[in-house]
Amino acid sequence: MKPTMILCLVWCFWTTGAWAEEAPMSEDTKACLECHATVYPGTLEDWKKGRMARVTPAQATRKPESEKRVSFSSIPDRLQHVVVGCAECHTLNSKRHPDSFEHNGYQVHVVVSPEDCATCHPVEKREYDQNLMAHAYGNLKNNALYQALADSVNGQQSFSNGRLSYGMPDQMTEAESCLSCHGTQITQQGTIEKSTDYGDMAFPVLLGWPNQGVGRINPDGSKGACTSCHPRHQYSIAVARKPHTCSQCHKGPDVPAYQVYGVSKHGNIFSSSAQSASWDFDAVPWTVGKNFTAPTCAACHVSFLKSTDGSTVAKRTHQMNDRLYERLFGLIYAHPHPASPDTTLIRNRAGLPLPTELTGEPAFRYLIDKKEQEQRKDKMQQVCLACHSDGWVQGHFGRLDHTIKTTNAMTLTATQLLLSAWDKGLAQGLAQKDSIFNETIEKMWVEQWLFYSNSTRLASAMGGADYGVFANGRWHLSKNTQQMLDWIRLYERK
Amino acid sequence: MKPTMILCLVWCFWTTGAWAEEAPMSEDTKACLECHATVYPGTLEDWKKGRMARVTPAQATRKPESEKRVSFSSIPDRLQHVVVGCAECHTLNSKRHPDSFEHNGYQVHVVVSPEDCATCHPVEKREYDQNLMAHAYGNLKNNALYQALADSVNGQQSFSNGRLSYGMPDQMTEAESCLSCHGTQITQQGTIEKSTDYGDMAFPVLLGWPNQGVGRINPDGSKGACTSCHPRHQYSIAVARKPHTCSQCHKGPDVPAYQVYGVSKHGNIFSSSAQSASWDFDAVPWTVGKNFTAPTCAACHVSFLKSTDGSTVAKRTHQMNDRLYERLFGLIYAHPHPASPDTTLIRNRAGLPLPTELTGEPAFRYLIDKKEQEQRKDKMQQVCLACHSDGWVQGHFGRLDHTIKTTNAMTLTATQLLLSAWDKGLAQGLAQKDSIFNETIEKMWVEQWLFYSNSTRLASAMGGADYGVFANGRWHLSKNTQQMLDWIRLYERK
Amino acid sequence: MKPTMILCLVWCFWTTGAWAEEAPMSEDTKACLECHATVYPGTLEDWKKGRMARVTPAQATRKPESEKRVSFSSIPDRLQHVVVGCAECHTLNSKRHPDSFEHNGYQVHVVVSPEDCATCHPVEKREYDQNLMAHAYGNLKNNALYQALADSVNGQQSFSNGRLSYGMPDQMTEAESCLSCHGTQITQQGTIEKSTDYGDMAFPVLLGWPNQGVGRINPDGSKGACTSCHPRHQYSIAVARKPHTCSQCHKGPDVPAYQVYGVSKHGNIFSSSAQSASWDFDAVPWTVGKNFTAPTCAACHVSFLKSTDGSTVAKRTHQMNDRLYERLFGLIYAHPHPASPDTTLIRNRAGLPLPTELTGEPAFRYLIDKKEQEQRKDKMQQVCLACHSDGWVQGHFGRLDHTIKTTNAMTLTATQLLLSAWDKGLAQGLAQKDSIFNETIEKMWVEQWLFYSNSTRLASAMGGADYGVFANGRWHLSKNTQQMLDWIRLYERK
Repeated sequence: MKPTMILCLVWCFWTTGAWAEEAPMSEDTKACLECHATVYPGTLEDWKKGRMARVTPAQATRKPESEKRVSFSSIPDRLQHVVVGCAECHTLNSKRHPDSFEHNGYQVHVVVSPEDCATCHPVEKREYDQNLMAHAYGNLKNNALYQALADSVNGQQSFSNGRLSYGMPDQMTEAESCLSCHGTQITQQGTIEKSTDYGDMAFPVLLGWPNQGVGRINPDGSKGACTSCHPRHQYSIAVARKPHTCSQCHKGPDVPAYQVYGVSKHGNIFSSSAQSASWDFDAVPWTVGKNFTAPTCAACHVSFLKSTDGSTVAKRTHQMNDRLYERLFGLIYAHPHPASPDTTLIRNRAGLPLPTELTGEPAFRYLIDKKEQEQRKDKMQQVCLACHSDGWVQGHFGRLDHTIKTTNAMTLTATQLLLSAWDKGLAQGLAQKDSIFNETIEKMWVEQWLFYSNSTRLASAMGGADYGVFANGRWHLSKNTQQMLDWIRLYERK
Repeated sequence: MKPTMILCLVWCFWTTGAWAEEAPMSEDTKACLECHATVYPGTLEDWKKGRMARVTPAQATRKPESEKRVSFSSIPDRLQHVVVGCAECHTLNSKRHPDSFEHNGYQVHVVVSPEDCATCHPVEKREYDQNLMAHAYGNLKNNALYQALADSVNGQQSFSNGRLSYGMPDQMTEAESCLSCHGTQITQQGTIEKSTDYGDMAFPVLLGWPNQGVGRINPDGSKGACTSCHPRHQYSIAVARKPHTCSQCHKGPDVPAYQVYGVSKHGNIFSSSAQSASWDFDAVPWTVGKNFTAPTCAACHVSFLKSTDGSTVAKRTHQMNDRLYERLFGLIYAHPHPASPDTTLIRNRAGLPLPTELTGEPAFRYLIDKKEQEQRKDKMQQVCLACHSDGWVQGHFGRLDHTIKTTNAMTLTATQLLLSAWDKGLAQGLAQKDSIFNETIEKMWVEQWLFYSNSTRLASAMGGADYGVFANGRWHLSKNTQQMLDWIRLYERK
Repeated sequence: MKPTMILCLVWCFWTTGAWAEEAPMSEDTKACLECHATVYPGTLEDWKKGRMARVTPAQATRKPESEKRVSFSSIPDRLQHVVVGCAECHTLNSKRHPDSFEHNGYQVHVVVSPEDCATCHPVEKREYDQNLMAHAYGNLKNNALYQALADSVNGQQSFSNGRLSYGMPDQMTEAESCLSCHGTQITQQGTIEKSTDYGDMAFPVLLGWPNQGVGRINPDGSKGACTSCHPRHQYSIAVARKPHTCSQCHKGPDVPAYQVYGVSKHGNIFSSSAQSASWDFDAVPWTVGKNFTAPTCAACHVSFLKSTDGSTVAKRTHQMNDRLYERLFGLIYAHPHPASPDTTLIRNRAGLPLPTELTGEPAFRYLIDKKEQEQRKDKMQQVCLACHSDGWVQGHFGRLDHTIKTTNAMTLTATQLLLSAWDKGLAQGLAQKDSIFNETIEKMWVEQWLFYSNSTRLASAMGGADYGVFANGRWHLSKNTQQMLDWIRLYERK
C-alpha cells in the first residue's frame, strides 16, 4: 500500500471519521439543494463550511451556559433536530415577510432578518435593538440636520450663470453612499417574471437591495442585518471578531477606528501573531491571554470574555455601547452616549436635533448621566485590567478624558470662525435658513469635527499615534483652523 | 496506535521522500548553480520553492485540460524533460535579445520577457497582448495629453522673479514615477567590466532597469513583465490571486481598487478567513465556494473558475478587460472600454487623444459597442451569479450604472468651472496652447475626475462604502466643486 | 531508521506530551504568580507563550555563536538557571529605579528599562544607545525649532477679535501626540493608596505612563523601550521582524514607510506568502531565501542575515542606521546621517539647530562623511545582493540618489516661495522672531518637505510607485508649490 493511500485512508476516517455523525438536514432544505447545488453553488459551499451546517439547535443548546452560542429557551420542534439550512431561515416566519413569495411550493423570502435570527438568538437580537447601529437608518434620515449633511454629499451640483446649485439626491445614490453602512429601507415593488433552467418563475423586485447596512430596515419592519458582521453564509463568530469586519464602515476619515487600531500596539500584535496556532477566534467563551494576546474591536466592545481563572471579564453584548461612557464621534462635539438608541428625539436648547449645543454643552436631558457613564467606564476598564495594571489604565483614560476636552475646544474654535463668517455675511447659515453644509467654509468646519477631532480622539482611545498628529490629527486641526481664518480674511477684502 | 501517530508516520515517509523523485535539472542550469548558489543565493532558494523548480513541461502538459497551467502544444525537446531553471529562461531565444551577452560560455540575457514565457504559456501571452496593461507604456508616452499630465507631475518647478516655471522631466524620475507601474523602456547602453570572485567579466548596462511595470518595453520588443503579478522567482499563481499583488499599482487615490476591496464585504471575508485551511489559492481550476468563499481581484477579472457541479463559471483571461463593459477609470469621463488596447489611435471630435469629449460624450468609434458591452457585462455577472441571486446582481449593477452617470455629471460640472476660468482669462488653457495641468484650478479639475470620480465609481463597483463618501468620494466631489468656484471668485476680484 | 523519522516520532511524543520538562521558575516569580494568576491574568498567559518563559539564560548562552539570542558574557548566578519571569525583570536593579516600591516584601518597579534588559542583552542595548531613536525624546524636546513645530501641532488655538492665538501645549497632549512615538519622560509623582483584593496597598503614581515610545526616558535615566518593537510580554523576535511593528510610528504622511512597503514588490510577496509554512520569522540567524523570500523592514535595517552557503549577509544591529547612508527624512532636506545620535548639538551656518541650511546645503560638520556614507551604502547593498544582481542594485540606487536631488530641489522651490512671502510681509517669519510654523503658507511649506518630499523619497527607496506620484508624491509636490504661489498672489492683491 502506497503511503499516499495510507494518508488518504487516515484522512478519510479522520474527517468523515468513523466517529463523525452525519449532519441531519431537513427535507425542505434538501429540496432547496436539489436545484441550488447548481444555482449559485458558491453559497452552498460557503454554508457547508459554517457551524450552522453542522450543528442542530438541540445540540447547540445542550452546551454549558458559558459555552452557548444560542440563547433561546424554546424553539419549534421541527427546527430542533436539523441543522440550520436554506429552508430553516428563508421560509421562517413567512407571514411576517411581505416580500415572501411562492417558490416551488414554498413561501420563500430573500431578506432574512434579525427577527428570523432571533428564533435561536433572541437575547442578541434584543440587545442589538438597543444598539445605536440598529437605528442608523432613522437616526440619519429622520434628523433634518444630518439629512442636510447627507444631501450636501449626495446631491448633484450643477454650474450655470456663474453659480452652483444643488440637486436633491436620488435613492440609488443614497443607497450606495451613506446608507451603504447605515442601511437602506428595503421594500418590494412588484414582481418580475424570469425564465430559468427550471421554467418561468416570478420573483419579487426589491428596492434598496442588496444591502448589509447595520441599520437596514427590513421588509418585516425589523432593524439591522446580522450579516453585517457575521457575513453570509457561514455567519462565523471568528469573522465578526476580526477587525477587518469593522473596517467596512469604520475606516474612512470620519471614523478611522480600523486605521487607528492598525497602528496601535494591540493592532501590531494582532497583525503580527493572530495567525499563530495559539490564537483561537472561534472559542466561546473567549479567554483573554489564552485564546488571544491582544484585543480586537470585538474583544473590547462585544465579546463574552473570561479569564483563565474562570471569572468573567466582560459579558457578551450586542448593544455595543454599554462599555462606552462617552461618544467620541462628535456631533458636533464628543458627548455622553445618548440614553435612547433612537436619537431623533434629541433637541438641544437651540431647538436643533443635536446632542450638543453649537458651543459644546451637552444636551444632558437626552444623554446618559454621570452614574451610567461611570458604570460603563468601569465595564470597559475591566477588559483593560485583564492585562494591564490599574496605574496603566488610569494613565490611559486620564489622557483620553483630556483629549476629549482639547478636541472639543478645537471644534469650538472652528465653530466660532464659522459663526464669524456668517455674521459678516460671507456665507449663508442658520439665520438665513440656508444649508449649513454647502459653502466652502462650512465644509472646512465639518472636516474639523467630523474628520480631525474624531481621528484625534480615536487615536487617543486606542493609542494610534499619528492619527492624532499628522494623519488627520492635531496637525490638521491646526492647519484647518488657520485656513478658515484665511478664507474669511480673503473674502473680507475687496 | 492512535490516529495522530499514524498521521505522523505517514508524514515521515512523505517528507523524507521514500519515493519523492529527484527533479530533473538540465546540465546548463546545474552549471549556473555552481556559482549562483553563492552569488545571490536568495534567488535560488526562492526558485526552489516554486512549481517551476519541481515540474517539467512534459509533466505539466499531461494534466487534464481543465487543470493545465501551461498552454503550449509543442516545445523544443531539450526543454521537455527538465524543470524550468536558470538556463531554460535566461538563455532562451537569445538571438532575439539584443541585451544577451556572453557569460561563461553561455549567451545570457537578464531581462526575461513575455516572449520567453510564451514558450510554455503562448495562450496567456497572446491574451496579455490584448490587455490595456501591455500597452501601458505607449498609451501614456505617445499620448500628448497624458504625457502633458505626466510632465506636470514629474517636471521640476523653479521659482524666480515671482513666477514658477516647469522643467522637462528626466528619464530617471519618469522611471520611478508613472513608469514604475506603466513600465519603462529597457535599452542597453554599452557594457561594463566588473571584477568578480570569478575573474573580470563584462555585463550589459541596461537603461530603465530595474522595472516590473505591466507595460514594460523589453529589449526584445515584447511588452509587459509576467513578473508584475507572478513575482520572481516562484512565479506563483497563488501570489497573483491575492489582492496584495494588484495593490502595487491599484491603491493610490487615482485608482484605489485595493482600498475599496479592503472595506468591501468580499475583502472583509478574504482578510478574515483566507488563511484558513479550507482556502486554496493554488488550485487549478479554482472552484467557487470550495477553494475560496469570497472573490479576490483575480477571481473576478482573470481566473479560470469552476463551480462544484463541474461547470465553467469563467474562462481564464489575461486580457483582463473582457469581463469589463465600462472603463470606470475616467479619461476624463467613464466610458465603454477601448476597442483596441492601443489607445494612442483614439481621437475625439475635438481632435484630442481622449476617449470622450470634454463634455462627456464617448468617442464611440474607438470604443466597444453596446453588444460587446452586454457580452462582457454578462461574463462578469456569471461570476457574481456563482454566489448571488439574479435579483441581487441586477440591483448591484443598476446602482453601478447610475453612479457612472452621476459621477460623470460631477466631472462635467468641474469641467464647466474650468472652462469658465479659462474664458475669464483667470487661467491659461487649450485656447492659449498652455498645459491644461499646470495651474491650481486645473489641478483641482484633475482631482475631480482622477481621484474623486474614480474612487466613487470603484466603491460602487465593489461595495466600498466610504470610498464613495468621505474617503475621496462624493464628499470630496462636492467640496472640490465648491472650492473651484471659490478660486474663480477670488481671482475675479480686484 | 532515518533521522526525519526519529524526528517525527519525537514530535509525536512531544505533542502528546510524554516528556515535556517543567520550565524551572524562580521562587520569587512563583510568588508573583500566586496573585497575578488572577490579577491581570492575560499578561501571564501572554508571557507563557514566549521564549523567555521556557528558556533559561544558561540554556540560551550555550547555543552556537550565530544562533545566540543573548549577548552576555556573565550574569548573576541566581538568574542563570531559571526562566525569565516576573521577578527576574521587575525586581532587577531595583536600587537604580527611583520608581521601585515595596510590594509584598519585594522591591518592584513597573517600568522595566533597557538597562534591565541589558543584563542578558548588553550588546543590543549598547547598539541601541547609538540609535537615533534612543534619543528621540531629547532630539525633539531640546531642539527649539522642532519643539516650535510640535507646539504648532499641539497648542490649542483660540479665536477672538478676529484673531487666532496659540496656547502652549500641555504635557498630556504631548504624551499622546509627538511623544507617543518619540517617548515620554516618565517620572514618579508620589504614591497612591489603593484597596485591593489583598488589602490596602501603595503604588507609585507615574507621570508620562503608559508609553512605549522608542526614546522613552525611563525613571532610571535609560533611554528607550525594548517593548516598542518586542511587545510585552512575549518579547518576540518574530513580531519585531514583521512590518506591522514598524507601522506604529512609520505609517503617517510624514514617514509613510509602511505604506510604501505595502505596495512594493517586497511587500506584495510578504503579504501574499509570509503565512506559508516555509517562512520562519523566528529563526536565528535569518537565512535569506530559505527562511523568507522577501525582506521586511527588519531584514534590511536590523537583522542578522545569513545566506544558505553559511556566509554572513549582514550583522545584527540595533543602531539601525548603520546600513543607511542618507537620511531620507528631510529636516528640511534629505542629508547624510548625523554623526552623533544626539542631534541637539547640530547648528547650521545660520545658527539654526538644523542639519541643513534653509537652502539645502548640509551642515557637514555634524554629519557622517563620504567615506562612512560609502561604507553604509555598501552594507545595505550586501543585503540587496543576496537576491539581486549588481546591475539591478546599481540601477536602483542610481535612481534613489537622483530622487534625493530632485525632491530636495522641490523643497528649495517651496522654501523660496516662503522666503518671498516673508519678504513681502505677507507672513511673519524668522526675521520677526515669529514661529515659522503657525501661518497657512508656513504649514504648506512644512507639508512640502515633511509629507511630499519624504513620501517621494521613501517610494524611491523601496519601490512604492504611487507614494511617489499621486499618493502624497510628486503630484502633491507640484500642486502644493502652485498653491503656495496662489496664496502669495491672493494676499498681494488689495
